[in-house]
Amino acid sequence: MTTVKIGLAGLGTVGSGTFQILQENSNEISRRLGFDLQVVQIGARRENPNCDTGNTEIAGDIFELVGNKEIDIIVELIGGVDTARDFVLQAINNGKHVVTANKALIAEHGNEIFEAAKSNGVIVAFESSVAGGIPIIKAVREGLSANSINWIAGIINGTGNFILTAMEQEQRDFDSVLSQAQELGYAEADPTFDIDGTDAAHKLAILASLACGVPLNIDAVYKEGINSVTQNDIAFASELGYRIKHLGIFRQHENGLEVRVHPALIPLSSLLANVQGVMNAVMVDGNAVGPTLYYGAGAGAKPTGSAVVADIIDVARAIKAEQTVPMLAFENLSTDKQYLPIDETVTGYYLRIQVQEKTGVLARIATILGDLNISIDAILQKDAHGVQGNVPVVILTKQVEEKKIINAVKSIESLLECKGPVVRLRVEHLDVDGVNL
Amino acid sequence: MTTVKIGLAGLGTVGSGTFQILQENSNEISRRLGFDLQVVQIGARRENPNCDTGNTEIAGDIFELVGNKEIDIIVELIGGVDTARDFVLQAINNGKHVVTANKALIAEHGNEIFEAAKSNGVIVAFESSVAGGIPIIKAVREGLSANSINWIAGIINGTGNFILTAMEQEQRDFDSVLSQAQELGYAEADPTFDIDGTDAAHKLAILASLACGVPLNIDAVYKEGINSVTQNDIAFASELGYRIKHLGIFRQHENGLEVRVHPALIPLSSLLANVQGVMNAVMVDGNAVGPTLYYGAGAGAKPTGSAVVADIIDVARAIKAEQTVPMLAFENLSTDKQYLPIDETVTGYYLRIQVQEKTGVLARIATILGDLNISIDAILQKDAHGVQGNVPVVILTKQVEEKKIINAVKSIESLLECKGPVVRLRVEHLDVDGVNL
Repeated sequence: MTTVKIGLAGLGTVGSGTFQILQENSNEISRRLGFDLQVVQIGARRENPNCDTGNTEIAGDIFELVGNKEIDIIVELIGGVDTARDFVLQAINNGKHVVTANKALIAEHGNEIFEAAKSNGVIVAFESSVAGGIPIIKAVREGLSANSINWIAGIINGTGNFILTAMEQEQRDFDSVLSQAQELGYAEADPTFDIDGTDAAHKLAILASLACGVPLNIDAVYKEGINSVTQNDIAFASELGYRIKHLGIFRQHENGLEVRVHPALIPLSSLLANVQGVMNAVMVDGNAVGPTLYYGAGAGAKPTGSAVVADIIDVARAIKAEQTVPMLAFENLSTDKQYLPIDETVTGYYLRIQVQEKTGVLARIATILGDLNISIDAILQKDAHGVQGNVPVVILTKQVEEKKIINAVKSIESLLECKGPVVRLRVEHLDVDGVNL
Repeated sequence: MTTVKIGLAGLGTVGSGTFQILQENSNEISRRLGFDLQVVQIGARRENPNCDTGNTEIAGDIFELVGNKEIDIIVELIGGVDTARDFVLQAINNGKHVVTANKALIAEHGNEIFEAAKSNGVIVAFESSVAGGIPIIKAVREGLSANSINWIAGIINGTGNFILTAMEQEQRDFDSVLSQAQELGYAEADPTFDIDGTDAAHKLAILASLACGVPLNIDAVYKEGINSVTQNDIAFASELGYRIKHLGIFRQHENGLEVRVHPALIPLSSLLANVQGVMNAVMVDGNAVGPTLYYGAGAGAKPTGSAVVADIIDVARAIKAEQTVPMLAFENLSTDKQYLPIDETVTGYYLRIQVQEKTGVLARIATILGDLNISIDAILQKDAHGVQGNVPVVILTKQVEEKKIINAVKSIESLLECKGPVVRLRVEHLDVDGVNL
């Protein structure tokens, strides 16, 4: 078991997210690979105060990394185009594999970079360059490789989507929302690329190329930004049953390719219309699979870092040429994990109880639940339509351990007024950080 | 350039879909790989009348395929467990790579099969065994490999989801919808596995294992089917703001794993609640990326075939050990594709025209559009709030070439009553076969 060694250039938002993931998930990553990953050198002009890099060596000049013979994989997270291009090309010429999140670099110089990589026998991986943490490049390039891709349509700029969402929901104007986005760190100090469509154009150029196997061509992308969208148009669109989103659209025709980014009205009921805030989503329609959709966080330290680290793992596996992806994802399976018995799981519950219409029965049911510390979220009591004056009482409970609800149901069923078994269904709240998904 | 040779066992729905994709997309697939794939032998008890297999040799006994020295990859699409197990193990022992869509086989005998594959140095690929055409195994195993997976929640049985959707939308009872699902070919003649949760349990066992790297354990999956869901409960759930879906849920806790399939109420506003009919969707929450969602067709000849062929392509690349995935998806890039100029693209349009409130102006605008054969979808005329009696007229057009709309806008802007430039936004209808997405 030998370690694969990483040089990390750039310790900004994505750089520190990447470093943190490699530290925090190191055990699981090593179990996936059967060997370790180690960041041996960081290139950064300054430490990131939000990222504890421990004893890792830090070089003030990122170009030290490409000369470091120990390093197997260079991770380029400095952003920008010109220096990044020189840096990546030098790394490649020194025989190093490269992982980059730099969409501008790939869209503008990808053809040259991939050519250099090919002749040097190294890999350049760039999953994190499009749609942050969503593994969309892997989906288009490998997951849907059986297909001829008919079209792709996506919300691929989180900042722009955040602005449009806030303009609609809070009836605020463009400039005020933009200021807020900058304060929240969603928009750059210079937000030009997010606003004029350049960032989305970079990403769409990459997706278009992957979709049909043509060289990268940023000049072929038609581009409009969100700066022309007004509060008025958002309101009119809504009255007509539409929502304005900034979309990247690729389409293959017999006579040519359509590649364009611009704001567009889409029906309120459509999947993409309901992708709000900083989330991204990409629809891909293949001639075999039909329409598919990929949704997730399009930006941020950890989500983008997730894609960077996935690339590092892919490249590390390729370095150990004998190794393909383990069939059950991990090279070393864990055999000490326990399975929880179902009665220890915690969910909300829907209870439907057939009761004889009789004063006091609801109080008795509530008492049973209360005694077991089961909180009630909602009650629905219907009129008697059924036979013999029986009526359904429907109760939604808050989250509770299954054991408790089983006891409660037993007690309820033993009430004289309760007719027949209680129908019990679970209620799942798939929320993350309190936000319901 | 040498061809990779395939033996295809089973020519039912998925088998014929797989064969057709390999034929129809053969040019693009060869361009992806830099070499050809060829089905050299089919194992099937009878021809499928819906699938023209041309000159391909057909063996009535599938076991002929595992003895065929020419074959590199065996594709097992016969279904069932016992024969499939013998067949796959023989193939592996004969040094053949295996691609299978058989969730029951993997869930019940995967540990044994992967062990055999490992000792014989071959790959067993099974993307199509979970969620049909959605590349969910690749997403969990590779795309999200940076993450410790917190939880997975998915609609992973299309038949069950079709039944629940129809019960709600058409207020029909379980038995009548089930008969219809059988007529439409969504449900098997023996639909037991779809209805009692077994099929979803097989799939969830696979996802759980991939999510945290544990051996497959079908016995650990708690299982309830949809047969207990009544029209009544669907209606009550709806009144309370919920929808009943059959979910597969995996969750990692400090003290153990939760793995369960059962019907559950989920809030109407949640993403999964809006996955209807035979579609599948899987949410995966990772500790770095946060929540992500994957949506697409969970069954059917071509969608499932899409995943089978993607696996074949992956395995074929691994056979040519020197080859990793091409950086731009295709080994041979195409250089003769044209890009369409933006004015040749076709979309709907939203036009906002500031006009002087004056009788006849709407007629003049309509005439301009009519003369250019541009059809109107909707018109919204607002009261005058603005300065100088100007009012906005908003028009949605049907699909039209951009050239035409540019001419129309020019003519409208030249009207005396038109004040200032016309605001023009595109309207995208991302529909497939008439169904709006």
